[in-house]
This record gives sequence, C-alpha cells and structure tokens, in this order.
Amino acid sequence: MTEFGFIETIRTLCADLPLGGFEGIGDDCAVLPLGNGESLVFTTDLLTEGVHFLRGATSPEELGGKALAVNLSDVAAMGARPVATLLSLSLPADATDDWAARFMQGYHALSARCGAALVGGDTTRSQTGITINVTAIGRAKDAHLKRRSAARPGDILLVTDPLGASGAGLRDILAGNFGTPLAALHRNPLPQVEEGLWLGMRPEVHAMMDLSDGLASDVRRIMEQSGVGTAIELTQIPVAEGSDLRTAACGGEDYKLLLTAAPEAAERLATDFRKRFGRTLYPIGRVEAGNGLRWLDRGTETQLDWQGFTHY
Amino acid sequence: MTEFGFIETIRTLCADLPLGGFEGIGDDCAVLPLGNGESLVFTTDLLTEGVHFLRGATSPEELGGKALAVNLSDVAAMGARPVATLLSLSLPADATDDWAARFMQGYHALSARCGAALVGGDTTRSQTGITINVTAIGRAKDAHLKRRSAARPGDILLVTDPLGASGAGLRDILAGNFGTPLAALHRNPLPQVEEGLWLGMRPEVHAMMDLSDGLASDVRRIMEQSGVGTAIELTQIPVAEGSDLRTAACGGEDYKLLLTAAPEAAERLATDFRKRFGRTLYPIGRVEAGNGLRWLDRGTETQLDWQGFTHY
Repeated sequence: MTEFGFIETIRTLCADLPLGGFEGIGDDCAVLPLGNGESLVFTTDLLTEGVHFLRGATSPEELGGKALAVNLSDVAAMGARPVATLLSLSLPADATDDWAARFMQGYHALSARCGAALVGGDTTRSQTGITINVTAIGRAKDAHLKRRSAARPGDILLVTDPLGASGAGLRDILAGNFGTPLAALHRNPLPQVEEGLWLGMRPEVHAMMDLSDGLASDVRRIMEQSGVGTAIELTQIPVAEGSDLRTAACGGEDYKLLLTAAPEAAERLATDFRKRFGRTLYPIGRVEAGNGLRWLDRGTETQLDWQGFTHY
Repeated sequence: MTEFGFIETIRTLCADLPLGGFEGIGDDCAVLPLGNGESLVFTTDLLTEGVHFLRGATSPEELGGKALAVNLSDVAAMGARPVATLLSLSLPADATDDWAARFMQGYHALSARCGAALVGGDTTRSQTGITINVTAIGRAKDAHLKRRSAARPGDILLVTDPLGASGAGLRDILAGNFGTPLAALHRNPLPQVEEGLWLGMRPEVHAMMDLSDGLASDVRRIMEQSGVGTAIELTQIPVAEGSDLRTAACGGEDYKLLLTAAPEAAERLATDFRKRFGRTLYPIGRVEAGNGLRWLDRGTETQLDWQGFTHY
C-alpha cells in the first residue's frame, strides 16, 4: 500500500466520525474555525532515522531546526501565523545528552525566529533509531486562510523562489558529500512564514500550499482539490543555482510556496512581493479547466512522466 | 539524563519563547484560552516498539486503541471533552497492509466511542520499528478545567477505580503470558472521558490528573505543582482483582483519575459519582501542608521507598 493509498483507507474508515467543528481534510493543515472570524490550523509531521535523515549526515542542531521547519512551512502555506508546537522525541541510548541538548538548540533557534511557543511534548527512550514528531498550531483570520481547493481556471501558477536546491543537496548527501552548500540547504530549510502571512492577506491569491514532495506531485494536490488542470511552462520554472530543471520539478523538500492568483492581479502581486521581500515571485504556468497536468516547452506540449519525490 | 531532567533542560532553554496565548507548562495538557469562556487543551504521546509495546504481545487493533487512549486520558484528566486527534504512523516493511488496516480499526473504534474526529496526520516508512504519535485536542469551559496545581491542604485525595490491574498485566506479558485477563486490561486501557467531564463540572474537585506513571509518581506531580504534601493510607488504596498493593501504588498505565476534593464535599461527591456511574470514588488520603509524601499504615507512618513506573 502506498502512503496515499493508506491515507485513502483511513479517510474512508473515519468518514463516520464527527468533525468536532473542524473543516474536512485536504489541506496542508486541519482547520478549526473559532467562530469569531479566526481559525486555528494544525499539522503534524514525523521524521524517522534512515528514512527522513541519516544521523551521520546532519548535525543535531540542523535536525532540530528541520523537524520544526517542515511543520511551520505547512502553517505558512495556509496563510497562518505559527503560534505553538508540541514535540515528541524518541531517543536511543547512543543519542547522548549532548546530542539531545544540541537538537533542542536548533529547535529553539527556529522557534524564536518564527515566534512559536513550545507548549508540550513527550520524551521517551527508543530501542531503535531516533524518531521526532512535531505538531504545529497556527492562527489566522478566516478571510486570510488559503486552501488547495481555491484554484480557478485562468489563474496564474506561481512559486516563491527557485526550486531544486534541496533535491540537489540530497543527491550530494546520498553520494557522501555532506559538506556542499546544496547539502547544507537540504538540511536547513527555512519555512516561508512571513511570505505565507503576506500572501494570505492578498485576496487575489486563491490556492496555496508548500512544496514538500516536489512541484510535479504537489501541483496535483491543488488540481485534485480544486477540480482543475494546469499547464506548466518548463522554461519558466526557476532553477536554483547548482540544480537542474528536472530536480527543480521533481525534487522534494524545497519548502517554498506554490500558489495560484487571479490573472488580472498576478503582475501587481509580483511587483508588491518584490517591494516587500526584495525577491521574485515566479509565474510558471496557468490553471486550466479539466484535470490534466500539461508540461509545455516554449508553449508546445511535451510528454513527460515526471513525478515528485519519495523520501529516501 | 532522565526524562524529567531532559524536560527541565527544555523548559529552561525555551523560557524566553513567547507563550502564544497559552498558559505555562505543568499539566496533563497545554491550555489555550480562547477568550470566550472556553479553552482548548492539547497533549501528545509517542509510542515506540520495544519500549511501549512488544509487537508480538499485542494485536494491531489493541495498539490502535491504546495509542489513542493514552492521549484521550490526558484530555479527560483536565475535565475537557476530546474533540479531535492527529495521528502519525511510521511503519516498517514487515508491518503489512493488513496490520495497518487493523491498527486503524482499533483507532477508529475508540475515536467513535469517545466522539473524537481524526483531522490530520502523517504516514511514513520506517527503517526500524513501529512508531506511533498521537496529538489530541480537547475543549472545555474555563470554569471546568482541572489542573495539577489546585490541590489545597486539607483536601481529600481520591481515585476513580481500583489500581494495579495494568501493572499486573504487564508482569504477565513480560513473563510471556499474553493471554491472561490482566494482560488484556494492560493492552486495552479505556480513557475515563465521561468521568473526567463529570468531575470537571464539580467545583469541589480541585486538582486532577490521570494515573499513567503510577500513583507513587503521579501524586508527586500534584504535590510539586500545588506546593503541598500528601498522606496516603495504604489500607485505603483500592487494589484491582489479581493485583497487589505495591503494584497498585507503583504500577503504571492504569489511566484512572487521581483528584483532590474539598473535605466538606468529598462524601457527597462520592455519593453522586456512584449515582452517575454506579461505581465507587475511593478516598485514599489527604493533602497536607509541606512537601512530603507520607505513607500511612492504619494511621501510622511507614517508611517506603516506593516509586512509579518506567516503561519497559
């Protein structure tokens, strides 16, 4: 069973449970409207040794930061502000006190940078490897929440930064080259919290999500949830320095934002984004009617069987 | 470093982080007041193979129920109603699709029984053993929330059921006797959600928490948070059938409730509890000034070095 197959099994099994005031599943975070014009959002991610990281290829500080970053990125992708996290940490005997303290230094540094409290958790021994689970809680005005389901045919598809650095860094790591700049980028993702909040306040931004599994996978989530197709112009995908087009489209863990915006307002949005952040907001394609993903090479459709990223 | 030592390290390190509207740490759950007379509460627990369970000694359904139960018990201990959970599941290749589906059956059955939604999660491969993390969210009126810090000298100390069944069941399991009734009780804890809600609404109940690490440990958490001592009468500790006094006092994972109540109202509370639930609310001692835990044998202090439970 694939991850998505199992998630579908869970969804079917649990369809008869009450929602407890929550909206249905399908976004980067679960949404709980508070009834006062605000909502809380919730997300959880588990990282386990040998699947999401290799202990010898990352410092404890980096891992502490990354375990938090992947969750805060989900909060940011909703247009919400991170409020607090809960941290579960399962450590084998060979992860020393020093390792644990350094892990927490990394977790604390990113918490402080993003203004997130640490309000609870669980620490336990492990008989096997290191496992980390983080649950993040965010808050947003209802009007600022962005969902995967809000893309409309005609929208411009945009990304907040060049892609593929993390995927190229992972390739370096798997080849044993832990010290390259790209490998460091892979280990030290920065969630785009301020960018997410700013984009959340813009009504011309329709759908939004974070790029964690790779553009080729993630864009399909927006398509499924919105009931639309997309056309992506390969020459417009911004490729991070040292990476390549295919890695930019298929590599995971960039933790940049993917969004759709009303066509008449997309140019102004990019101009204002540059004013605010000093960086480009890259248009890479269009939302279309239908349900297909079309890759275009200078406007001509090209057949590519590109898929996103599966954790090593 | 012990678990409590590490938690203290984390607390010191993170003291400079904003609280994000949350109350401080120290209870079964983290508390977020919503400002409308209600609060949300949050708790998280991680279970990992070989530490919290042995795969061969539990059915997947039982494990699914237990992973949820230990979290819902924390919510109940605050006097809150479980609203929703997030589930992270890390599965090695030798946990089959059938195993995963059966795990979810157990998780679903208890979710349905307690009225909790499943609103998010993460599923991932594991290179090592099975790891499960659950985050539970509860809701309560502010006036009904019970905290560990509310015990007052003179209060009666009470427990909601006989203790020690789970500890005796664990002993059976570790001896290879998986099929005994006590072993089944150890694997199938039922969170006392309705009891917690009912006790939450009683103003004469002061402090409350769930018994997860064993009475001898857990009562110390109330003492620390409330700045009080306690005296426990050994002959009044209710011992579950098939267990023994020491296991009732020191064994873990009973997931019953430990509470303190105003002395003048304790008898009436127990009478009403019996009317509502048909079961006894057991007085086992008193809250005192000071900070010591005194074990009494028919009123006479006896020196015991009893401690709670550490996970196998």
